[in-house]
Amino acid sequence: MPTEHSLVLLRHGYSEWNEKNLFTGWVDVRLTPRGIEEGRNAGRLLREAGLLPDVVFTSLLTRAIQTADEALLAADRAWLPVVRDWRLNERHYGALQGKDKAQTLAEYGPEQFKTWRRSYDVPPPAIEPGSEFSQDADPRYAGVDVPRTECLEDVVERMVPYFERDIAPRLRAGERVIVVAHGNSLRALVKHLDGISDDDIAELNIPTGIPLHYRLDEQLRPIVTGGEYLDPEAAASGAAAVAAQGGKAGA
Amino acid sequence: MPTEHSLVLLRHGYSEWNEKNLFTGWVDVRLTPRGIEEGRNAGRLLREAGLLPDVVFTSLLTRAIQTADEALLAADRAWLPVVRDWRLNERHYGALQGKDKAQTLAEYGPEQFKTWRRSYDVPPPAIEPGSEFSQDADPRYAGVDVPRTECLEDVVERMVPYFERDIAPRLRAGERVIVVAHGNSLRALVKHLDGISDDDIAELNIPTGIPLHYRLDEQLRPIVTGGEYLDPEAAASGAAAVAAQGGKAGA
Repeated sequence: MPTEHSLVLLRHGYSEWNEKNLFTGWVDVRLTPRGIEEGRNAGRLLREAGLLPDVVFTSLLTRAIQTADEALLAADRAWLPVVRDWRLNERHYGALQGKDKAQTLAEYGPEQFKTWRRSYDVPPPAIEPGSEFSQDADPRYAGVDVPRTECLEDVVERMVPYFERDIAPRLRAGERVIVVAHGNSLRALVKHLDGISDDDIAELNIPTGIPLHYRLDEQLRPIVTGGEYLDPEAAASGAAAVAAQGGKAGA
Repeated sequence: MPTEHSLVLLRHGYSEWNEKNLFTGWVDVRLTPRGIEEGRNAGRLLREAGLLPDVVFTSLLTRAIQTADEALLAADRAWLPVVRDWRLNERHYGALQGKDKAQTLAEYGPEQFKTWRRSYDVPPPAIEPGSEFSQDADPRYAGVDVPRTECLEDVVERMVPYFERDIAPRLRAGERVIVVAHGNSLRALVKHLDGISDDDIAELNIPTGIPLHYRLDEQLRPIVTGGEYLDPEAAASGAAAVAAQGGKAGA
């Protein structure tokens, strides 16, 4: 039997700013009780599937870290080695960070709104230095050239080299990896793994809280394109909900 | 002003087996709600004291990891880099693991009981291979020569070299370190830092959930012997409670 590598992707659950319907990006909000429950459920799914990872990667954002902690505790794997990196962070939403999604939609109209949410290479306006929702002074990014805004292409350009340099070697060494991150950093990674075009990635939505399992061949190519959700029915309705958002939740 | 290094020690909070009054050692029980609250309180104390660490070390036991997670979340430092190692684990309690403390005291008498709890170099009887409460098959210890029992001297012999090799260099590099661990692994470290004799360490008790701050000089010697608790009154009553245990709680 040929070598098979195991990579699980997990998007964090419902956050305080999902609830308030605000653009979040790099603003460090927490999970709501519903989001915590999503993390625990993800851990139970991992355990029931016997998909117990050897190492966990998270972003530097608390909502992903909480999701990882809750999932691993529920899977009896709280003791896993942990790697955190800003390159797994959500897309920086620029000047939209902290803005109400419905108001933004009303103010700028559906075309502009959709462009900011889903275009591959058009970033929102840059956030002002020193603004309330910028991360200039945040100690976790000491030494990092913190972005002022990002489009998905920018996320691909930080995420994919990080995957190749820090995650892929551990997969090749036979470790089972779980990456707990965000709608857009995971879309960037899935685009890379599945070879999705710049246009088609706009239609791809990743639901929250459902582990997405990629079995990878020796070249780290997916054995099943798109991977396999541990709870396919919940994943399908979750992805549809993200896609249907006028401006509600998600990225 | 001479260089000063910052090391915080934190003993995990109340666990399920503290509640049941069983010897725990390496058995991987969880915190109770009271223990979770102790972790959160420790985080608030760190934040109020402005003692925000740059890196966290934990054992491989879930109760220490939960304590670290709760404390760091409460201190807005969930994103810290994490290092976990079995050398920070609680003392292995040998064949006593899983046994009721009060029954053990009644069965073996106060002298033997005290020897097992507090002698420096007399370990409890070894646990049987394959016994319910041994850790032979636990995947987190793959590649580790799992002990069958330990006295405090054994803990010193694994803990101190680990401190010198993995923790001390980070302190010397100017990082503020927090170590979240257990009654006996922290006693081993304090013995080393403060130069406490094999006899005198028997009388040293570390309370749960109160951060203990060591300011260290260039040679990593304590500037204040015994360190400084962030909540000295709670620490004093907590240490007295550990010392007074007939067989209740603690190590």
